[in-house]
Amino acid sequence: MRVLVTGADGFLGQSLAARLAAELPGIKKLVLADRHVASLRVDGADYFTGDLGDVAFLDGLLEPGFDLVFHLASVPGGLAEQQQELGYRANLLVPFELARKVSMRNRDARFVFASSIAVYGDVGSSNVTDHTLARPLLSYGAHKLMTEVFLSDMTRRGALSAISLRFPGLVARPPAESGHGSAFMSLIFHKIAAGDSYACPVPATAACWWMSRRAAVNTLLHAAHLHQPSQTVIQPPVQHAMIADIAKAVERVTERRAQIDWGNDQNLTRIFGAMPGLNASAALALGFKADADLDALAEAALSGDLS
Amino acid sequence: MRVLVTGADGFLGQSLAARLAAELPGIKKLVLADRHVASLRVDGADYFTGDLGDVAFLDGLLEPGFDLVFHLASVPGGLAEQQQELGYRANLLVPFELARKVSMRNRDARFVFASSIAVYGDVGSSNVTDHTLARPLLSYGAHKLMTEVFLSDMTRRGALSAISLRFPGLVARPPAESGHGSAFMSLIFHKIAAGDSYACPVPATAACWWMSRRAAVNTLLHAAHLHQPSQTVIQPPVQHAMIADIAKAVERVTERRAQIDWGNDQNLTRIFGAMPGLNASAALALGFKADADLDALAEAALSGDLS
Repeated sequence: MRVLVTGADGFLGQSLAARLAAELPGIKKLVLADRHVASLRVDGADYFTGDLGDVAFLDGLLEPGFDLVFHLASVPGGLAEQQQELGYRANLLVPFELARKVSMRNRDARFVFASSIAVYGDVGSSNVTDHTLARPLLSYGAHKLMTEVFLSDMTRRGALSAISLRFPGLVARPPAESGHGSAFMSLIFHKIAAGDSYACPVPATAACWWMSRRAAVNTLLHAAHLHQPSQTVIQPPVQHAMIADIAKAVERVTERRAQIDWGNDQNLTRIFGAMPGLNASAALALGFKADADLDALAEAALSGDLS
Repeated sequence: MRVLVTGADGFLGQSLAARLAAELPGIKKLVLADRHVASLRVDGADYFTGDLGDVAFLDGLLEPGFDLVFHLASVPGGLAEQQQELGYRANLLVPFELARKVSMRNRDARFVFASSIAVYGDVGSSNVTDHTLARPLLSYGAHKLMTEVFLSDMTRRGALSAISLRFPGLVARPPAESGHGSAFMSLIFHKIAAGDSYACPVPATAACWWMSRRAAVNTLLHAAHLHQPSQTVIQPPVQHAMIADIAKAVERVTERRAQIDWGNDQNLTRIFGAMPGLNASAALALGFKADADLDALAEAALSGDLS
């Protein structure tokens, strides 16, 4: 088994790489790619640092052929909205070329794509199901949606075996990470754990979809090993909760309290904090799992444990 | 008003060009582009022949800037499925680059895109509405869907004013045209009009969506002149009819009869001949119109009248 992880130095990528490393040498070849690979060193893995949009770099990276590819690299939504040219190249053209070139060397490769619930856009107030229309409100979400369609088409015609996973904002990202509109969803964990006060930009009643990095890595690995999946686009189960209830869970788990001033940012609330319920029965039937409950979510979010 | 038509030498493009020519000199500049412009000459129009995938050609074509672009050029579905590389470049990358470059010169440009009902794929038996999920069964449909998402995103962020129109197979294409899986939908008109026998590949009960070229040109022009449209993707109204009823209408209009042997091609029937009803109320409210009835459709389909 030859495995490639793009975005391997990112928040999700680091944790996935650590989990995959624990499976070495069962994995014949593990290649970790990112623009910079600084944070993490995994014994036995090969590192490729460069720009996936650079044809020579991409060809060199893919030359050995892969059986399993995790495509996690992307420019975050806030940044991609500001820098359209960057987002177009990194979040749209790169996945196309990556998938095409992986396929040229191995049409049976499993290609696991980190999509996003940003594909939905304005979902309204009804439960999200497999029949919910995607109407993205950010270029980031539009590019993720287009990549899903592209990969589903490749899978339909036998050019690849792709699965797209619609992830919510994962928690708890490092406080310093920028570019994510959903940064508040991670800061709430860190601020309470540190006993700091926090001016949260959204109201206490903002309802979001929550998933820890640990649950996200489990989701990626489960998707990688599914045998002949019946669907190419998966909405994994999540925890659907108001941010005030998340804050309470963090207080219980950390035994700390923080002064939180709830805000009223209409735009952030509309995009991230007005999520209806989710009917993830199709994904549940395939064995995908959310964090068990809000306390388990809070514990995992703050564990700092890569693996 | 500076107007560009791509695919201007195609079945739809020729007729649109003739209609636009009738509006000259009200149109300040009319540019007709295609790989070859042989069939048609419109006085007062500028001709550009070349490949839209060629960067230098595209830049030269778009240099003056346009207020209105009709993007009709595409590789037909059957051919694009066989030649994936060609389809990927012509039906996906070309619309992206065309739209981006039109926008760079004029963010207010109206961009009318000829999409296709191939976006739907397997629609099931319920009426198609604005809430019907698109699950394309051909790369052609996948590329059209992705372009719709791309153009809707550009419109959302004010980079362009785009409208995508989901056209059914238009009738009656010239008998010699190839590459369209839906060729039988046009041949039925020509064969009856010629009094020939016809081995139709689908059963008499195959239910298709029908639109004449004349209705399609009216649809394009209506989309071009809509003021601040509330939707970026439009399913225009169509005639929904069994092919046997179309044959009867053609017989009435032409006063000819033909021996038709109905076939049973499962794949063609699944893709083109299993269409449920259409609820086009949104498009009707915006003033879009189908052919008035099956006789009007048959008459328009066989008129041979470009304008």
